[in-house]
Amino acid sequence: MPLCVKPVRPDDLHAFCVEAMLKAGMDRADADITAEVLVATDTWGTYTHGTKQLRPLLQSYRDGRMDLHAKPELVGQGASWATFDGHHSMPMPASVLAMTAAIDKAHQTGIAVATVRNSGHYGAAGYYAHLAARQDMIGLSFTNVDPCMAVPGSRGPVLGTNPIAYAVPAGDEPPVMLDIATSVVAASKVFALRDVGKPIPDGWLVNADGLPTTDPTGYPAVGALLPMAAHKGYGLALMVEILTGVLSGGAFGNGISSWGGGPVAPVSQSHTFIAIHIAAFEPVADFKRRMDELTRQIRSAPKAKGSDRIYLPGEMEHESRQRAIEDGMALPDHVMLRLQGMAEDLGLDLIRIYGQHAAGGATRKERHG
Amino acid sequence: MPLCVKPVRPDDLHAFCVEAMLKAGMDRADADITAEVLVATDTWGTYTHGTKQLRPLLQSYRDGRMDLHAKPELVGQGASWATFDGHHSMPMPASVLAMTAAIDKAHQTGIAVATVRNSGHYGAAGYYAHLAARQDMIGLSFTNVDPCMAVPGSRGPVLGTNPIAYAVPAGDEPPVMLDIATSVVAASKVFALRDVGKPIPDGWLVNADGLPTTDPTGYPAVGALLPMAAHKGYGLALMVEILTGVLSGGAFGNGISSWGGGPVAPVSQSHTFIAIHIAAFEPVADFKRRMDELTRQIRSAPKAKGSDRIYLPGEMEHESRQRAIEDGMALPDHVMLRLQGMAEDLGLDLIRIYGQHAAGGATRKERHG
Repeated sequence: MPLCVKPVRPDDLHAFCVEAMLKAGMDRADADITAEVLVATDTWGTYTHGTKQLRPLLQSYRDGRMDLHAKPELVGQGASWATFDGHHSMPMPASVLAMTAAIDKAHQTGIAVATVRNSGHYGAAGYYAHLAARQDMIGLSFTNVDPCMAVPGSRGPVLGTNPIAYAVPAGDEPPVMLDIATSVVAASKVFALRDVGKPIPDGWLVNADGLPTTDPTGYPAVGALLPMAAHKGYGLALMVEILTGVLSGGAFGNGISSWGGGPVAPVSQSHTFIAIHIAAFEPVADFKRRMDELTRQIRSAPKAKGSDRIYLPGEMEHESRQRAIEDGMALPDHVMLRLQGMAEDLGLDLIRIYGQHAAGGATRKERHG
Repeated sequence: MPLCVKPVRPDDLHAFCVEAMLKAGMDRADADITAEVLVATDTWGTYTHGTKQLRPLLQSYRDGRMDLHAKPELVGQGASWATFDGHHSMPMPASVLAMTAAIDKAHQTGIAVATVRNSGHYGAAGYYAHLAARQDMIGLSFTNVDPCMAVPGSRGPVLGTNPIAYAVPAGDEPPVMLDIATSVVAASKVFALRDVGKPIPDGWLVNADGLPTTDPTGYPAVGALLPMAAHKGYGLALMVEILTGVLSGGAFGNGISSWGGGPVAPVSQSHTFIAIHIAAFEPVADFKRRMDELTRQIRSAPKAKGSDRIYLPGEMEHESRQRAIEDGMALPDHVMLRLQGMAEDLGLDLIRIYGQHAAGGATRKERHG
């Protein structure tokens, strides 16, 4: 039987996460932003990067890897650029601040870039790209990650899984959104299988000898992820490392520490956000009509044998979110275990994820009709 | 015995290509820029995208796919953006113009983006990125390509091989440069093997039934390339399609025609260039020192069994260029055949690739020393 005994409404999960962050000592504004990022990610079905991450994030403050009371600081800016120092604060508010700065500047000039140094695990890269798309912009989002990925010719970890995300608004069709690790898979997918005792597919990891393995138990202390498409994923991960850690004036390569394991050290990830103002180039309605046309072209292409549908990037997430808003979410066990652990850490009732009055037996939906 | 009987100096190959373009009716300024792009690409060892492309480019003018006498036009601009209409002119001058505009604007604002619509095959995407790196900027370069790649769930071509390129300056170390198709391989690599009657490795192509094949003979009329890393390459190819064709107001998806085969129709590729002004963020010397540090970190990582060197992206190309400048280039047969064909098309002496006075038996090096 699954640990999640009934569908969880996004609003209730948000309230539970805010409660946890307030209990941990965060202020309400930052807690609200952080919960919004994590819960939105869950609604997309990207459970590896959603509220599951809140427990280790709060743990990283208790460990001293990050600073619960710090605030991000704008340390430099110009017409189309801005640099923030996260000062090891919660990464989600710092990241929303930076993407918002990029969006504001792009409104004036056509494109803008903002970096954040001295930050940590910012969750799903795609969330910040989607903030730009909601403002009728093309959004790009990148972060470096502590080294956990081999590169062609290396034995062990050299670069992080350094994700690339983008989002683009459409008209009647769903926005396009992609959020990919530059490794074959995200480390969180290895952890998700490792945590439930399952082997991983071949081609995801190398072991301590640099040889392929299906055993994730030693990872990340031992072994390394493989880059997607060999030298191509390596080259793109390096692009992300340069756009984030090097350009931001932050840490890069082996200067970044794990936010969730290993020796306790400042995490020091860096993020970079780019916003492109569509209206500078053409009327937004024309752009969206063309996005709809491209979407329909792709969707209606002849299907491969055994396939009856072609998905656009972000389409599954869009549909998952609609279902989550309407029907709530059946959170997977690996998420529930983390939320349960966080509740125990902080002395909260996990049952509150089912609604503010869940302890009394009624969900909000039942109460309202 | 190889067709290239002695090393070809880059300057001599440049002069030969300019001569061909003048004979075909191009003006000298555009011919010089185009030769520079193609010969630089050969010096990097990227022979699939170098002077080999000049014959089919000139053929595409004779066919009416492009317009030899057209000039690119600036049709819109702002503080950090510009849009050009290529009017089906030679793509290299239009692309250099657009990247130069992006660089100039980024000097003022920190980052800028420029698009070109109604263009064609612009050669190696990395060339334009490298123009920005030479100006102490981070350069990005993208182009859409006529559909020749399947996407997950499709039977035939849906998107082009839409490349992504970037270049970043370093200090004492070589600049980093990546130029990758978002397909498993570039179409030109299939053509290079097809043209010499060799099979291709498994996993590059699907046949007319959507099934994997090692037979390239029918391609591109039949079959489709596969995207790198499945949905990841698909998503990145779509990002390029949006940043180029959709954002530029140009053609996209099945609105793009092949520049080198199939029915004669306007090519209508679009390109997008982004330049990021490093000096806005930090002193360039600091940035370059950090790039050197990152390069050395990666290069000195423990090696995998059977590997004795880790290359940075662009390092092989950098070394190839040094050798080409010092010792000349042994052009591969597939390049020589194209140059020979072009010489026949235009009534030129192919022997001129060995130097202006090659017919007299002396290379310039011999003459000067």
